[in-house]
Formats: sequence, structure tokens, C-alpha cells
Amino acid sequence: MTRSSTVDAASVTLQPQKLIQGERSRAKIDVDQINVFLESSPEKRDQAQALMTELVSDPILKTDSSYYGRSKREEREDTARKIVRLALYMEHDIKTARKHFKGTDLVEELQRSEGEDLKNESDLVPLTNSDVAIFDRRLSLLHNMDPQVGTRLGVHLGLFGNCIKGNGTNEQIRYWMHERGATFVKGIYGCFGMTELGHGSNVAQLQTTATYNAESDTFTINTPNLPATKFWIGGAAHSATHCAVYARLIVDGRDYGVKTFVVPLRNPETHQLLANVVIGDIGQKMGRNGIDNGWIQFHNHVIPREYMLSRFTKVFPPKSKGGKATVKTQPQLDQISGYSALLSGRVNMVMDSFRFGSRFAIIAARYAVGRQQFGPRGHPETQLIDYPLHQYRVLPQITVPYLVSPVAFKLLDTYYSTLDELYRVSSPATFDKAGLVVVSKKLKNLFIDSASLKATNTWLVADLIDQLRQACGGQGYSSYNAFGKGYDDWVVQCTWEGDNNILSLSSAKSILKKFAASRRDGIFDTGLDAESFSYLEPGFIHDVLKTGQNAEITLEQLPDYSRVWAVALVRFLDHIARLVDSTKDLDSVAKLLVLVSKFHALHSMLKAYYDKLNSPQDSHVSDAASKDALWDVYKLFSLYFIDKHSGEFQQIKVFTPEEISHTVQPQLLNLLPKVRKAIIPLTDAFKMPDGMINAPIGYFDGDIYHNYFDEITKQNPTEVDGAGVPPYYGLLTDLLNRGWEFDHALGGSARANVLKKLGK
Amino acid sequence: MTRSSTVDAASVTLQPQKLIQGERSRAKIDVDQINVFLESSPEKRDQAQALMTELVSDPILKTDSSYYGRSKREEREDTARKIVRLALYMEHDIKTARKHFKGTDLVEELQRSEGEDLKNESDLVPLTNSDVAIFDRRLSLLHNMDPQVGTRLGVHLGLFGNCIKGNGTNEQIRYWMHERGATFVKGIYGCFGMTELGHGSNVAQLQTTATYNAESDTFTINTPNLPATKFWIGGAAHSATHCAVYARLIVDGRDYGVKTFVVPLRNPETHQLLANVVIGDIGQKMGRNGIDNGWIQFHNHVIPREYMLSRFTKVFPPKSKGGKATVKTQPQLDQISGYSALLSGRVNMVMDSFRFGSRFAIIAARYAVGRQQFGPRGHPETQLIDYPLHQYRVLPQITVPYLVSPVAFKLLDTYYSTLDELYRVSSPATFDKAGLVVVSKKLKNLFIDSASLKATNTWLVADLIDQLRQACGGQGYSSYNAFGKGYDDWVVQCTWEGDNNILSLSSAKSILKKFAASRRDGIFDTGLDAESFSYLEPGFIHDVLKTGQNAEITLEQLPDYSRVWAVALVRFLDHIARLVDSTKDLDSVAKLLVLVSKFHALHSMLKAYYDKLNSPQDSHVSDAASKDALWDVYKLFSLYFIDKHSGEFQQIKVFTPEEISHTVQPQLLNLLPKVRKAIIPLTDAFKMPDGMINAPIGYFDGDIYHNYFDEITKQNPTEVDGAGVPPYYGLLTDLLNRGWEFDHALGGSARANVLKKLGK
Repeated sequence: MTRSSTVDAASVTLQPQKLIQGERSRAKIDVDQINVFLESSPEKRDQAQALMTELVSDPILKTDSSYYGRSKREEREDTARKIVRLALYMEHDIKTARKHFKGTDLVEELQRSEGEDLKNESDLVPLTNSDVAIFDRRLSLLHNMDPQVGTRLGVHLGLFGNCIKGNGTNEQIRYWMHERGATFVKGIYGCFGMTELGHGSNVAQLQTTATYNAESDTFTINTPNLPATKFWIGGAAHSATHCAVYARLIVDGRDYGVKTFVVPLRNPETHQLLANVVIGDIGQKMGRNGIDNGWIQFHNHVIPREYMLSRFTKVFPPKSKGGKATVKTQPQLDQISGYSALLSGRVNMVMDSFRFGSRFAIIAARYAVGRQQFGPRGHPETQLIDYPLHQYRVLPQITVPYLVSPVAFKLLDTYYSTLDELYRVSSPATFDKAGLVVVSKKLKNLFIDSASLKATNTWLVADLIDQLRQACGGQGYSSYNAFGKGYDDWVVQCTWEGDNNILSLSSAKSILKKFAASRRDGIFDTGLDAESFSYLEPGFIHDVLKTGQNAEITLEQLPDYSRVWAVALVRFLDHIARLVDSTKDLDSVAKLLVLVSKFHALHSMLKAYYDKLNSPQDSHVSDAASKDALWDVYKLFSLYFIDKHSGEFQQIKVFTPEEISHTVQPQLLNLLPKVRKAIIPLTDAFKMPDGMINAPIGYFDGDIYHNYFDEITKQNPTEVDGAGVPPYYGLLTDLLNRGWEFDHALGGSARANVLKKLGK
Repeated sequence: MTRSSTVDAASVTLQPQKLIQGERSRAKIDVDQINVFLESSPEKRDQAQALMTELVSDPILKTDSSYYGRSKREEREDTARKIVRLALYMEHDIKTARKHFKGTDLVEELQRSEGEDLKNESDLVPLTNSDVAIFDRRLSLLHNMDPQVGTRLGVHLGLFGNCIKGNGTNEQIRYWMHERGATFVKGIYGCFGMTELGHGSNVAQLQTTATYNAESDTFTINTPNLPATKFWIGGAAHSATHCAVYARLIVDGRDYGVKTFVVPLRNPETHQLLANVVIGDIGQKMGRNGIDNGWIQFHNHVIPREYMLSRFTKVFPPKSKGGKATVKTQPQLDQISGYSALLSGRVNMVMDSFRFGSRFAIIAARYAVGRQQFGPRGHPETQLIDYPLHQYRVLPQITVPYLVSPVAFKLLDTYYSTLDELYRVSSPATFDKAGLVVVSKKLKNLFIDSASLKATNTWLVADLIDQLRQACGGQGYSSYNAFGKGYDDWVVQCTWEGDNNILSLSSAKSILKKFAASRRDGIFDTGLDAESFSYLEPGFIHDVLKTGQNAEITLEQLPDYSRVWAVALVRFLDHIARLVDSTKDLDSVAKLLVLVSKFHALHSMLKAYYDKLNSPQDSHVSDAASKDALWDVYKLFSLYFIDKHSGEFQQIKVFTPEEISHTVQPQLLNLLPKVRKAIIPLTDAFKMPDGMINAPIGYFDGDIYHNYFDEITKQNPTEVDGAGVPPYYGLLTDLLNRGWEFDHALGGSARANVLKKLGK
């Protein structure tokens, strides 16, 4: 059936494009303004739009329905090809950021200026975060189309690079990153050798050893046993020439704990493994098969002493033959800095949550509006989105990316400024001891926030994809509608770079400590804690716990919808503190601590959203109807999660059962039809091109059935042996036309007359 | 590294097999008795064990790590090959069930006896449910290893077959199923043509037409428009020769609604499509790619009138030329019977939930015991399962398959007996009008129970797989450990054969009606309703609602743990009924109705488990310690879900906030370490062979790291271009050794001296 011949224009049912266009034409809110709100500022909006257009237009980077269902082998190669293409964009992006397209070739000069040609310190113009900001955004947006590409390259740029930047001396950073070219994906391709088969979260117990050899002034890297095999190492199986190895530093038989080393793996020219390095492919994974995760074993692999990253711990060779080597270490900074390699990933995953969540929100919204099923006799069937249950299933999920956006942009800014500060105060030329104390505190808060937001949002988006897939019925199960691969690719975010449960526990334990300090000793840093931990302000804690009532949360004022989470957090922390007091066992409340981390994240999200929207300057929203719609989104998000956690809210007496029944739930139900009216403009406002959505039931024109059918027929052409006749059809015709196997196989030897003879 | 060289026998850490074996040797409970409890009876246990052994030993049917990561094309062919193999087992299983291996070939005779050779009615020995019971169990168990095989064959045997059995006359059943051989996967391969692109749940609005042609006494089957395309039809793309088509019966311009027709699609000998039949492949899906789901369009496809399935609706040709055809119909029976094709699937999915859930429970339990991470300095690292949070994450999930088992076996029995009864009372020879009324009521209850249990348990197991994958950290994300494919294959169960939300709504609406009838009019059928709807007994309702208190649920007695759900159901239904009274809008409480269905299922599961374990005869458990462990499982399941739904339990005042804090949650936390002690025997008790588990971190010997590493190296052999050198390595070496592209590409034409010239 061709498109034109199969549409009955007069039909009242099954005209999804009419329905979706209709909602658009009736829309009262300003999609452009809301888009700016979501993209944080007009400048960032322009940049995001430009980058998205470039990505979906690029012949190598773009994806279409052929993207689904590729083999591991194909995905690996496609991903490598995309990385090659991205290296071109990278040069371009750095030149754009530096506004330098003329004269000397900037990138070449950048690389050369830091090598042996270096004349004096002032010639250095090292790359800063802002120089790579465009490219980082490009990668971040590409994650939405093909997450594995960003990760495979991100392991090199982010994990390997950040490990060197966080643990290397300035000269080591310059050499590996700039002179050798790692920053530009040249000369070196790095991987990140932290995890082992036997140890993931417990980094301190990693078993790989780096033993110092005084005679040769070298380290020997060893994998002492099978569980010490480096495992899951992204890029190791196929790509990496070097590895940032986390290994136990052993000097003179003494174990100094886990430090980092740059260890060569392959010859960058031939790609052959070096001697004493054994590498294999981890193989098939649930998702992201374009990433070549591998395992690595080292068998007496010798590297120069100078390959140890020595910003905070350094081994000095013996001063004389037969003498002893010495080790200088700053353990605390070492640790902070060691873990900072993972920070970037966590921060980026919050931004990913915004983007990836919005992609599936769009698909499910358009399907819910275009799809009709059941309804009163004699009328067009009802649009799914007009069922209260469907509204409840879809609309709160759409609010999730809305609520992630402000906090994601804010977290990214804080991350960049804090890391810049750390680099500055810990550099020899600009060393600042007092500044180091402050930045250490900031880093600690950043750890808490990023851990809690990473865990909470990666979980929320995993749930969002799952729920919205179900809301698209059978079509959600088709690979071409993106949910399946989307889910499989996504959920690893809940495990890697800090398991969500471990991260939640660790952030919640810190919050509980802060709570105790604030409550008991009034310790509260208005400079550093006021932002994320405002609910721990001593006076607020006192008020909330004193009243014994619901702290007058009536859900009548806009601030209430964030403040209620602050009240809940204090009550909940108090409840947990009492339990711990009586049991003296922090582990036994672990299940509750995971919730504290979630509540903390939800509160941060609501607060950041409130602050942004409440500020005419930051929100960029002047249109009243749009602002109202955005406040409805805010309220819906808060109410949905209060209702989801109504068990805790009642248990800690923020709300009575009656308030849940008569305030929370009716408010939630009343909001749904309101937000429903704006569902198409609210999802259009993400301004995501079809090429990035890559799911025909979610395209802009709303022509669900034709778009979907077109992709299916395109990807499944008529079989060569005849339409609908598979290559293996002989198996089937033989089956259907067979004789009775047993009878034949036995040659009739079970028949009565034969058995009679045999039995004689 | 070879196995022996890499194990440090003296090492105190990372010896998972020692840990797991240690738990086994310390176990105090009787794994054999518990296995009988889970398998329902000693006879069924023996059968299940024998069938599992056969399945994992069969060279075609068995699966290993090579099973993960196959292409759609390979999965389709493998699945077909397995079906061919299964046809052999089928003959054998039927002969075993009939105890007939000698003399005439039973299966051949069965087929012939019902065809033209038929002499008199009494010669007929039609196949009954008990004749195919062994084979059905074989398929059900195979689902655990390779779900797609069972489904691909199940569409033919179950959906196509049940559609004919439910809607065909006895003669039609005999012809299509026995004489033509469909029952034996011979002659005919059927598919089930219900769903269309535009209509899934709303079967009554399907658009395909079957128009009666009086002149030729035929029907013309037509697909009037694109959304009327039959869609998702399992078996259509590659396998099916016939389709049970759901189409609107049009006679003399009048639309009689949706009826069923046997429609030929392909020539069974050549497998080529017939004229006027257009078929295509739906293509890549999230999971189960071995099933050849297709789409079908009919363009004036003519079939004889006699191909309409006419048990309840029949078209009679005009008595004279130019006269009018007449239609006789029994609409109500038609509808019951029409939907009954889907019942089998729903009932089987409850059994699948038991098996599939237990598979992942075993994997996660063994990993949790064998894996160590963190712990006090100087000691072996702590086993994951000794962390309270990990206990909370894993143990309640393990109770899920335990609680599903009794209700799954019970539901299957009820299904078989009810369908047998329906066949009997609606057959011309044994027609029984009064019996028909009773069986209709039974069917209705079966619809409610199976809908609620299907929806609830497929959701529970989807969550179980997801949660337990996360509990296995990174290794859970490896395809070889079964979670990824398991999840992708599983979750379609939440959508197909009745979307879980629609099923939940429909069962809850029926329950709400029963509640109203019982409360208002005292209508309660102690014969039919007492089993599943015991909580709707008028006296009980009265007591629960009268007290206004918690109906004295103290969670001190074993029955309390089921009874508390009965109390909650009544309170919840009362709460909903009040809301509906005030709003007059049933749709607005849909979200609560979904929970009613879930509560109903949880109550049924707890009650069936309680009844079974409480009966020495049914439980087959005489060992006291084992019985205690099984009661702990029961309590943990109940407490876990009370706590999960503590919002509702407080809101409807089954428990006060204080009772949640001081009874429910402490009881739950106290139970965890108790159940933890039995985790290995409790999961060993499923007695699932490694070949069915097919996940090396979950094998019986507990040698997690070696088993896992072995599979990875087996499935990912050394690359031909050199170890760790992928076929596409040139892309990578070119990238790393490139010059600066822009500079080169521009031939130096952006250099200052060139631009100076150009700018003149």
C-alpha cells in the first residue's frame, strides 16, 4: 500500500497527524521561550540548535533506523569511524572557541608550543575548559543519538585525560596530553585501568601491583591473579595505546596503596600489543556494544619510573647505588584528586539525563496524542492522552527532563569552576594553601551533589524509558522506536562510575553527618553549604523539628513545592538519626539512606528550577502563559514524587493520611488535565530534530503510522527466495510435509506384527 | 592465565566457591523437600527434573554463552531448527502420555481417525489436555532457556489452536487441528491475526473486513487501509501457512462485528505466498528476535464460507438464487470464547514468572554470596550478602518466585478444568444450558484472576530482573550473565496478550463491582467466589469497615500476613467507592484501580502459598527447619510489599505511621538476616541445571571468576590481525598518526602570508 492510496481523508479515526497539528495550532504557550529556559540561555540555545543540526546532517555521525539491530562487530567499526570524524570537528571547535582560524595553525602550534620547542613559561597557552567547551557539548549532544560514541571517546578524553590532569605534574600533563597529542586524539589513545574483575567500588583494594626496581629505576606492573585482571576497560579491547593504570605502589616491600601510572599497551603505529601485555575482548554487553571494553593482564611489564603520575605522590630513586628509594606523598589530596577523574562522568550523566529523558518524553507524548483507542460508540476513538490513567503514566515522566535541566547546567558550571580552582591552587606557580582548604570543601560538596544527582537521575530516566515504552504499547517494543536500545544503552549509567546504591549511601552518610553537626553544634557554612544544603541551616532544622506539625506546608504557595522536600529531609534525617542512636548500626538504615540521597536530589532539582524560573533574568520567560505552564510542570513533579513517597511522608508526619487523600492526590489529579493541554508544545519545546529522535512514532509531523510503516519496510526488504520466504524455509516445509518420524525411523519395527516375532 | 596458575589457595579473599560451598555445608534445611513444594508434587517434581535434563542435554535445544549476541537472522533460523526438533519430542510426549508405544503408530492413527476414514463417532479418541500435558510442560520449561522458541511455536499451538478450539465447530476443530495436522505441527502452521497497526487492545474496533459474497458463497478478506494492516503477527513473516484472522463480518452490508476466519497465506509445500496476500517482516525488536513477527495485508483475498469459525456465529447461504443470507449468532458466548484464546497465554505467563524469576534469583544469590567487597581492614572482604542493603535488595526478590509458584500451579489447573468444562457443555452431543451459565461465571472469575496475576507477576519479574542485574554490578551488564537478554525478552510480557494496565483496570473494575454487590446486596457466591475473592465475603467487609481500626492485624500470627492484604483490599475498595460516588468518574480513580489489581494478586499469592504450606498433605514439607524457612519467605514477601505500599496502608489506615515505624519496618529488617542464612539452599532448591541458568556468575559450583572468564575468552577468541588488533584497526592507526587535517586540507591557504596576498 502506498501512502496516498491508504489514507481515507474523511475518516474520523486514525489521523494522528491531524490531532498533533491541531494541538500545536491551539497551543497558547511560547515554545521558543521555553526552549531557552530548558537550554539555560539564548547563547547556549543557539549553540545547542546549531550543534544538533550539524550532528543530524553529518553523513558519518547521523543515525537512522538502520542504526538498530547492528552486530557488535558493525557497531565497533561504526563507532571508530565516528570517532575519526569527531577528531575533525574537534580541531574546528577548538579554533572556533579560540576565535583563531588565520595565520599559524592553532592546534599544531598548541601541540608544539608545549614540547621541546618551549622557550619560556609565558609562551604557554594551554587549553582550558572553555577551549574545549564546544566540543564537549557536541559530544554531550551526540550521546542522545549514539551514546556509545561519546563514551568510547569519553573514556580517552574524560577518564584517561582527567586521570592525568588530576594526578600528573604540570609537566606530565603537558607531555602526555599536549605534546604527545592525547588532548587532540593524536599519538595516544588512552584507556582507564581502574576496575578489576574482583574489585569495582572498592578501589583501595585493587590488586594490580607497580613494584619499584631501584637498580633500573623502573616499575614492574603485574597482575598477580585472575581477579586482579583489569576488567571492563573501555577502549582496551581494540583502541587504546596507553592505559592509566591504578596499581598498588610497592617500594622496598612497602605497600603505599593505589596510585596511578601511564602504561603503554600497543604500538600506536602498528597497533600490535607490546610484550608482557595480554588483552582480550569482554565481548557482548546488554548495550553500548560499540565500546570495546576489554580485559588486561600485565606480566612483568616494565615502565620507566617517570610514568608514574606524581602530582601528589612521588618516588625518588636512591641517591646512591644500593641506597633506598624515598616516597613523598600527600595522601589526602591524592585521594581527592584520584577520585576526581570520575567526577566529570557523574556530572555529565546528569546532563545526559536531561537530554536522554527528553528524547523519550517527546516520543511518548506524540504517540499518546496521535494514538486513539476505545471510546464512546459513534465517536472518533479517544486519544490515549485523554485517559486519566495515561496522563498519570506519561505526564509526570515528561516533567522529569524539565526538572533535571536547571540543576544539570548548574552542576556542570560548578564542576568546571571548582576543577579550574583546584588546578590553580595546587599548581607550583600559583600554590595557595588556604585556597586548597576551601576547594577541598567545595570538591566534597560536589561529590555529595554529583553522587546524589547522578544516582537519582540515572534511575529516574531508566524508569522513564521503561514506563514510556510501556505507554507506547507494542510499538514501544519495536527496535525502530528507540526504547529498547535506549534502555539497554542507558541502564549501565546506574552501575558505572559509581554504582548508584554505593553513591547514594556515600552521599547520604555525608548529609547525615552534616545534619548532626548542624543540629548539635550549629555548624553550617553559609558560604559553601547554603546552596545545596540549605535545609540543614540550624534555624530551619530547629523550626521543623520543634513544631511537630507539618511545618505549615499547605501546598498553596509555589515555594512550598520545594520546601516540602526540605521539611521531609529534616524529618527523615531526624528519624534516621534516632534509629542509629538506638541501634548504633549505620548499615541497618542503609535502605533509608538511599532515600535520603534521592530526596536530596529531588529537593536540589526543585530548588534549582524554582530559583531559575522565579528569576525573570535567568528564566528568559516573559510570556505569562508559558510561565504558568512551567509552574504547573514544577508542581506536578513535586506532587508526583510526594505521592510516590507518600509512605515516607506520612510516616515522618509531613502529611497526615487525610492530607494525602484530600490535598496531595486531588491536586495531582487536577493538575494532570491542565498539563495535558500543553503536552505537545511542552515536548516540542525540547526542539529535538527527528534525526536525533530516530523513532518514527515520535516524529514532528505526527504521521505515526506511515512513518513507522515506511521504516519497517525500508529495513526489511522483500526476501530473495520470494516474498515472505526466508532463506531457511526448507526447514519449515520439511517440518510441515514430514512423515511420522518415529514410525519411519524405526522402519516399522514397533508394529504389532514385528514385535510379536521379536517377542517370541 | 590458566585456572590453576592463577589461584592463590592461601588467599583469604576472592574464593567464591569456598564461600558458596560453605553455606551449603552449613545449611539446615531440606532442599529436596522444598523443591517438591515449589514443583507442586513429587510427581511433577520428577517430571520437571527429567524434562530439564533432557532440554539442557539436547544438542539442538541446549543453550550456552554463544546464545548471546546472535543476529536476528541467526536467531530466526536457530528458532526454526528448535521447533523442528520439538516436533519430534511432541510425538514422543503424546505417546508417553497415552502410554502407547506399540502396535499402530498412535499419532498417525490419531490424525487419520478423524479424517475421511472416520467410521463412527465412537472411534474418535481426540487429544485431550492431559495428552499434551507433558509437551506443554516441556515448552514451558524451555521458555526459561530460550523464550522465543516457546512463543514462536506457542502462537501456532496456543493462539491459533485455541482460536480454532474456542470458535470452531467440533468438525472444524477436528479438520484443522487433527486431520490437517495442526495439532502435530504438520500440514499447517498457524498464526494469530488479531492485532492491527491501529488497534491492539480495542479488538471490537478492528478494521479488517470479511465480506460475504452470496453468488460464490465465499468471503472476501480485505485490509481497507494502512492502520488495518495485521501487525505484530508472530509467525507471519516467515513461518505461517494459515492465519486465524479477526475480521468484521459483513453480510448484506450489515456489520456483525469481529469474528474469526481460517485464512490460507502460503502454499505449505513451496512456502510461497498466495495471491492477494501481502506479508512483510516487522523486523528488529527489543527482544525475542527469533520470533518472525510480521505484518499482513489482504487485497480481495477470497476464502470459502466454510472457513469461518462457526461455533457461535454462523452464516447460512441464501436458500435460493438472489435470496438473502442469514446469520445466526450467540453474541455473549461468542465474546467469551473469542477472548479465551488469550487466556492460555496469560495463565502460562504466571508460570513463566515463577520459572524466569527463579533463574535470576539463583544467579544473584550466588553472586551475592561469592562476591566480596569492602570490609574491615585486615579481614577478608565482606560478602555482598552480609550488607543489610544488599539483603534488602536481593532477598525479597528471591521470595517472589516462591510466592508465585503455588498460585501459578493452581491457576493452570483451574484453567484446564474450566476449559474442559466449557468444551463439554457447549458441544452439541453434551450441551448443557445450566452448565453453560456456571462455566461462564467461572470463566469470568478466571479472567479476573488471570488478568490480575498476569499483570502483577510479569511486572514483578521485570522489576526482579532489573533489580538483581543491578545487584550484580558490572557483571550483570555482561550479556553472558543472562540479565540483558533476559530483560529484553521478558518485558514484552507486560504488553502482549493484554497490556498490563488495561488488564489491571479491567480486573479491578470487576472486583469493584463485586465489592459493591457484596456490600450493598450481600451478593456473594460461596461456591465460586470464596476461593479468589474471599475478602469480599459480606460479613468480612462489614467487620473491616465497621471497626474503623486496623481490624486487629498485629502481624503476630501467620495468617495475618495474608489477611492484612484482605483488610487492605476492603479498605481500599471502600476508599475508591467513595471517590467514585463523589466524582461519578470511574476513570479518575484508574491509578488506584491498577493498585487494586496488584493487591488482589498479592493477596491471592499469599493465600495460595499459605494454604499450601499450611497443609501437610499439599506442602510435602515435613522437615521443621524447612517449614520455618518457608514461613520466613512468606512473611518477608508480605512485609516487603506492605512497606513498598506503606503509603496506601497508612492512607487507608490499615497501619498507623507508628505501626509502620515500630512493627512493619523492624520486622522486615529482622527477617532479612534470618532469610539470608538460607539464601543458598533456598535458591539451590529451584534445582535448576547450569545449562538452563546459562550465566557463569550463577553456576552451581560457585567458581564465579573462573567460570565467567572462561566464557568470555571462549566467545571472544584472539583476533586474526593480531591479539587485540581489530579488523578495522587502520581507522585507528590513521587517526593517531594523522597530520593536522585542516592545515593539510587547506594546503596552507589559511596561513598569514597567503591571506595577506589574498587580502590585497
